[in-house]
Amino acid sequence: MKYPSIINNLIECFKKLPSIGEKSAERLALATLNMDDEVLEVFAESLENVKKKITNCKICNHLAEGELCEICKNKEYRDQTTLCIVEESKNVILFEKLGSYNGLYHVLGGLISPLDGITPDDINLNSLMDRIKEGNFKEIILAIKPSIEGETTTLYISKLLEGLPIRVSKIAHGVPLGVEMEYLDSLTLEMALEDRQDIS
Amino acid sequence: MKYPSIINNLIECFKKLPSIGEKSAERLALATLNMDDEVLEVFAESLENVKKKITNCKICNHLAEGELCEICKNKEYRDQTTLCIVEESKNVILFEKLGSYNGLYHVLGGLISPLDGITPDDINLNSLMDRIKEGNFKEIILAIKPSIEGETTTLYISKLLEGLPIRVSKIAHGVPLGVEMEYLDSLTLEMALEDRQDIS
Repeated sequence: MKYPSIINNLIECFKKLPSIGEKSAERLALATLNMDDEVLEVFAESLENVKKKITNCKICNHLAEGELCEICKNKEYRDQTTLCIVEESKNVILFEKLGSYNGLYHVLGGLISPLDGITPDDINLNSLMDRIKEGNFKEIILAIKPSIEGETTTLYISKLLEGLPIRVSKIAHGVPLGVEMEYLDSLTLEMALEDRQDIS
Repeated sequence: MKYPSIINNLIECFKKLPSIGEKSAERLALATLNMDDEVLEVFAESLENVKKKITNCKICNHLAEGELCEICKNKEYRDQTTLCIVEESKNVILFEKLGSYNGLYHVLGGLISPLDGITPDDINLNSLMDRIKEGNFKEIILAIKPSIEGETTTLYISKLLEGLPIRVSKIAHGVPLGVEMEYLDSLTLEMALEDRQDIS
């Protein structure tokens, strides 16, 4: 390779990111030459600080800059009686984009998966239970994706919560909007059938 | 968006790169949290320096760290009588990867395109002609992609070189390896037919 070493370094760094191969890394590294100076400065500074300054919220485990995340900090405006349990920080952002949910979150940071050696102790369940004991929650919503690991985790948590005077729900699984029924996988269809709702 | 500001900054920076959309940028920004500290440091440092330290070689216009690129610097080992004309620095790397070409390069930095307002004066043709006058070239190879702009540029340069005591060639265009003839576009097939070679 006859690129200058800085370009080679950039190619190697981009290649370490998920789903960026040799060719894409080369294209991205060369593209940085066309970026504005200010963008490059922010880019470099953010990369340098991302692991130093970003932590997990002490309460909910969502990404935070400091002790608490923006959502847990915002005590007056967020409903402290509703808790939504999600797998990862990305899911929090999805719900926040909706704009209609105003409760709190708890980020598990993984799903129970015996095959991969991930037990209930490996995800943030202890902090969840402590939080529920100390808090004043009226409803807990399980918003975990429908997969083997997801269903296992949902079931495990619902067992933990059994007997508590709290409404426990899970988000509906079924036919998404804008999809032709014939292209739907049979498991989704089965879920949609099982979770059918009375309309009259 | 309820990500910490550093993460939001990273998402915005990644989005400025070609063919990285909102979702990919988010995925890449979050992935930096899992990168090794040393990688992040090299990444940040390289981004900070890429535009400050990377220039274009004074001779051939290829990317360089300093006055001259690695290829032009290497006077003893590179054949100073053969010149390969390419569109961009990326193409130099492609030829270098072959390992079989040992001559010099000239990077045009663009192709003539009247429709886009790119005239011969906008690409590195003056420096090319100066170089050819002062140099001792025996062969000039035009290695420009077969497109309207490419063919225009190739034709323009071959006219400029007419009358000089130098062999001027262009790389062959035709059927690539491993392709079913029936899936080939008709222009490529036409080029392959036009450039047919006697075999006996």
